[in-house]
Formats: sequence, C-alpha cells, structure tokens
Amino acid sequence: MEKIDDIGLEDIVQAIQPLDEDLWQKAKEHSERLIMPPRALGRLHEIAERVCAIQGCLQPEVGKKTVLVFAGDHGVVQEGISAFPQVVSLEMIRCFLQGGAGINALSREVGAEVRVVDMGIIPDLDAEDLPGGELLQVCKQGRGTRNFALEPAMDREQARECILTGFRVASKWIQSGTRLLGTGDMGIGNTTPAAAMGAVFTGCEPELMAGPGTGLEENGVQHKARVIEKVLRLHQPQARDALDVLSKVGGFEIGGIAGCILAGAYYRVPVVIDGFISTAGALLAQALQPRIREYMFAGHCSQESGHRIMLQHLDLEPILCLDMRLGEGTGGVLSMGIIQAAVRVFNEVFTFEQGGVSEKQD
Amino acid sequence: MEKIDDIGLEDIVQAIQPLDEDLWQKAKEHSERLIMPPRALGRLHEIAERVCAIQGCLQPEVGKKTVLVFAGDHGVVQEGISAFPQVVSLEMIRCFLQGGAGINALSREVGAEVRVVDMGIIPDLDAEDLPGGELLQVCKQGRGTRNFALEPAMDREQARECILTGFRVASKWIQSGTRLLGTGDMGIGNTTPAAAMGAVFTGCEPELMAGPGTGLEENGVQHKARVIEKVLRLHQPQARDALDVLSKVGGFEIGGIAGCILAGAYYRVPVVIDGFISTAGALLAQALQPRIREYMFAGHCSQESGHRIMLQHLDLEPILCLDMRLGEGTGGVLSMGIIQAAVRVFNEVFTFEQGGVSEKQD
Repeated sequence: MEKIDDIGLEDIVQAIQPLDEDLWQKAKEHSERLIMPPRALGRLHEIAERVCAIQGCLQPEVGKKTVLVFAGDHGVVQEGISAFPQVVSLEMIRCFLQGGAGINALSREVGAEVRVVDMGIIPDLDAEDLPGGELLQVCKQGRGTRNFALEPAMDREQARECILTGFRVASKWIQSGTRLLGTGDMGIGNTTPAAAMGAVFTGCEPELMAGPGTGLEENGVQHKARVIEKVLRLHQPQARDALDVLSKVGGFEIGGIAGCILAGAYYRVPVVIDGFISTAGALLAQALQPRIREYMFAGHCSQESGHRIMLQHLDLEPILCLDMRLGEGTGGVLSMGIIQAAVRVFNEVFTFEQGGVSEKQD
Repeated sequence: MEKIDDIGLEDIVQAIQPLDEDLWQKAKEHSERLIMPPRALGRLHEIAERVCAIQGCLQPEVGKKTVLVFAGDHGVVQEGISAFPQVVSLEMIRCFLQGGAGINALSREVGAEVRVVDMGIIPDLDAEDLPGGELLQVCKQGRGTRNFALEPAMDREQARECILTGFRVASKWIQSGTRLLGTGDMGIGNTTPAAAMGAVFTGCEPELMAGPGTGLEENGVQHKARVIEKVLRLHQPQARDALDVLSKVGGFEIGGIAGCILAGAYYRVPVVIDGFISTAGALLAQALQPRIREYMFAGHCSQESGHRIMLQHLDLEPILCLDMRLGEGTGGVLSMGIIQAAVRVFNEVFTFEQGGVSEKQD
C-alpha cells in the first residue's frame, strides 16, 4: 500500500498511463462474438470495452460504486449570482447525511454509496454530532472561497492542496474496494466558478457558459455572464496553468473533484463525471494531464448552458440526456446503472459458439 | 378476477380510460416540493408523475417488472430481406430460456423477469423438454406468417386472435403482480413487416422506414424498401383499420405486442416499449385506441431507420439514446432502471419541509 499522503501532484500526473490498446482491441473482439448482430447494443459495447481497457482486464467489474460529493462555499455569491441563499450548502449536506436528497435516492437505486467531503463550506460541521455524520469527511480548505470578483478565490498552494485532498479521499475509497467512482458537488453559487473555468479552458465566451444554475431569471443570467467577463479581465487566468485557473476563479469542491478524477486514472478505476460543476473539475484535471479523458465517462448532458461545450472540449459523449440540472452527482450516478448493464452484457451474454446460434449469411 | 378469455377486442378498446388529470396534477405539485430547484431532475419528474397518473395513486410502484418477448417467423424472408437465416428465431429462443442473450443480461441488471411467448415460429418448441422451458409459453397462431409479398400475412381472424393472445398473456402477468411491463420481440425478418406497418400508420415513404435490420448492406436495404413498396401497392392496407394492416403486412409477434400494450392500459400498468418492432406494435395499438400512448414509455430510440418517425407519430420521447438496435426488448428493459429511479426520487426524496431546507430567494 502506498503512502497516499506523500504523493505530490506532479508525481500523480506523471504516473497516469495511456489505456492498454492491446487489451482494448481484445475487448472489442470479444464484443463481436456475442450472440447478436455486430455491435447491436451500440454504446453499451463501447462502454464495457473501455472499462476493460481502464481496468486492464477482460472481466470488467464495477461492483462497489462510490459517489463522492465535494462541497464548498463561494465568496462570489456576494455578487448576487445565485437564486438560493448560501446556507443551503449546509442544509443540503445535512439532507445528504440523512439520505433524503436526490443523490441518495438515485444512489440507492444503482447500489452506490454516497460520501460527502466538506472541502470548505462556511459553517462548521461536526461529523460526530450530525445524524449520518459517519458519511461526512471534513477536509476544509477554508471557510468558503474569497469573492473572486475582487481578489483570487484562493492561494495557489490552497489550489494544489484542494486537488491533492480530492486525490487522497478518492484513493482511500479505491483502496477499500471501490471499482467505479462518481463525482458530485454541492455549493451554492458554484455554477459561477464552473462557468468561469469552462470559459477559460474551452476558450468560449462567458455568455455561452453562464446559465440559470439553480433558477436565475434571464436578467440574472446576464448579470452572471457580466460578472464572469469582468473577473476574467481582472485575473487573466492562464488555461495552460491549471493551478492558476483554480486559484483565481475556482472553488474548493471543484479542485476536489479534479483530484478525485486523477485518483481514478492513477489507480485505473473508471470515473463517472456528473454535470456542469463536475465537468469543470474534469477540465481542470485534463489541463493537468490530457490523457485523463479516457478514464472518464460523462454521465449525462446537463440542461445548464455550456455543459455540452465542455463535454465537446473533452471529447466525451454523455450517456444520458434527461434534461437534468441538479448536480450533487445525480446524472453520474444514474448513468452508473447503464455502465453496470454494459459490463454485465460483456461478461454474461453467450458467444455464438456458446449459444449454438447460426451466424450472419454472406 | 375477470375471466380474461371472455373479453373481446372491442370491449378492451372501449374500457381504456384517459389518465386521471386531477391526480396527475397532484403528482406534479408533489414534485415541486422536493428539495431541489424546480424540476431539476428533468424528465425523471415527468416519468414518475405519469406513472402516478397511470397507476392512479401518489405512491407509484414498479417493483415487479416483466418483459414479454413475443416471437414469430415471417414468410416474407423468402424475398431475401434478412441477413440471418430463419432458424435463428428458434436458436435465440433457446438462448433466452437459458439466460444467455442480451435481454437476459439486461433484465438481471434491472431486476425484471423475462418470459418468451411463441406466437408462431416455424419449428415446434416443447416447453417441457427445453432447458428453461418454464419461461416459455407456446401460443402459436401459425407456423410463420405467409409471404406477404404474394398474399396476406394472415387472416383477419388470426390478426384479432394475435392481439387477444398478447392481451391474455400480459393480463395474467399483471394479475400475478407485474407493475411494469416491457415488450420485446424475436423473429428473423421482422423489421420488414414492422417497416411496412410503420409506413402505413405514419404515412411516410417505405424507403424512410426500411433499415439494415440485423445487418443488411446498402443494396439489401434498397431491395427491402422495394419489397415493401410493392407489398403496399398489392394489398392497400388501410391505416384506420388496424386488423386490416396487421393481417396484410404484419407478424404474429407484432400483434402480440399490441395486445400486451392494450393489457397495460386496460389494467393501468405502464408499458415500456422497446425499439422498431415493439413500436410497430404500439402504432397498431394506437390505431385501435388513440389514447393508449399515455400508458406507454418509449424505452429508447433505435438506430433502425424509421424508428424516430414512429416515435414522433406516437408523440413519445425516448428515454435512452444509446445507438442500440438489437430488439428482444433490450432498450425497453434498460430504461426500466431509469423509470424505477424516477419513481424512487418521487417516493423517497425529502420535501423542503421535511428536509428543513431554505427555499429560493425572490
């Protein structure tokens, strides 16, 4: 067992390998032998084959599934960019711990476990005092970020530590048996840093990235876009320098998500990313290590403006398109059922030889 | 308990009621109270609310799930419209009974049971002699249809009996506890009758309905389209007369699927339709009773040409789009996991009051 706490960010990034092309090819050949017309289950074959290539085996396995919900607060809410009050970050964490939120219901459905990581909401949370507190890990990087309309959201060293924290938390779950990771988020105001990061990493205009979030009206969305434009002019974050972007316009939970994705790639465990916030974390991880996209599955396409642009930049096709826009990890977890189904088809469907089925005529 | 065998087709059609609008509205109001931004889980809310309106209750339940795979052979294979030999219908049924096909793997994943209904394949199947024979129900309406390039596929009374058989089989499952029905198909050559029926019911050109099926090349697809054009000129099936269409250009299993859908509506059990063949059955059911569409969920959009046109005609939005084109009920069953997840969100997520979560700011 490695000492996770001693691994540096550069070590992690450099240790991530490309997928095993030879094994990937063998997985494709297996799909061709299943009793059905060639690749008749479409994307289910692609998904299972990529799980093989990630896990490095031809008996893919996604039994133990864990979704890590990273939470943080955001100083930029002072600019009036959210429809809900900041205290909701805390209130929703309480609901996660009690099992009453959307992510809990969907995780029960697919058999995933939910864990909450407090990366830096403002109030103090005492895991020992809360109902369901055993599901919470407190890893505060601060009491909310600073208002990045005025100053950088966090220091560069905090940014690094956010990513390493996400890596360490996810690594421990992997070491205790998790075979499929999901990323989730909670943080009132976090579509604003995610949109700012999306604009920097994809190079698109802030107005294409700013959406209604939890429910802004049209003028609220325009205001949000103007805030992001102003912030990008003020800080000039550099897309090639991931820590620069995270520290200037990011959020603690987004850094944590990027670290979680790095852990998946480091340990060859597939990671299902959720919607807009998680995908901002994925863009951050990709800025650190471009080959990381092959370790990720895009759970769904969010209704939030800009998410599709982010996914296109990552060259990831979403598994589900159900007009969801909740975050928490919900779209990612729901798609775990599809990934699990794909793996089951790969492992359990007879080949033509096994089934004694005649093949296609010439 | 009604005597299912005594119910006539006209009685069934007339007994199907519109959904309960008042209860549907109450279900929507419940969704609005869940701890999340309004309707943030998108189509999951719509799905759960419609299950409520179908089942007539605000505690929707889809615990016991059954997919009925209707099988038949097709005389029109004599025209060279399929890439696989006809014996594969039988061989695949054997695989279904042994649990080795795509539909079996996906059904295990979502917790659905698979039952196979022999509506009229050519070979004899003795349920008592086959491994897994307890999963088979033999209801032969003939030994394959006649070649409808030359003569009607079946008599009008056979067509009626196909639909009633599907109704009776599904009714018995519903009476033994099934709360969510899926439709599936097996029958080498059956994309040709399905395409012919699709062209008649939607009014579109046969060339838009003819696709590669199990794997025809481009010239094979063109040949298939020409066969369908010729058949429609020969028989002139009338879209308003469902039995006329089924008897002239249909298939036994497609009639069975329509009957299964009618049973769902009759007993207020939601029915998940699968791809191209199942949707031809859905068009047939709709021709008998236009309000039936509200009882159906479209599991997925198939890659087979024309499926989207059929779904648009039914005004049904597919749940999944994963480039699948296998049939067997696979797309429908896979989407049962999504429907189940939607129902779980509706039943289990806290309301704002329960969760003690602050609401949206003005």
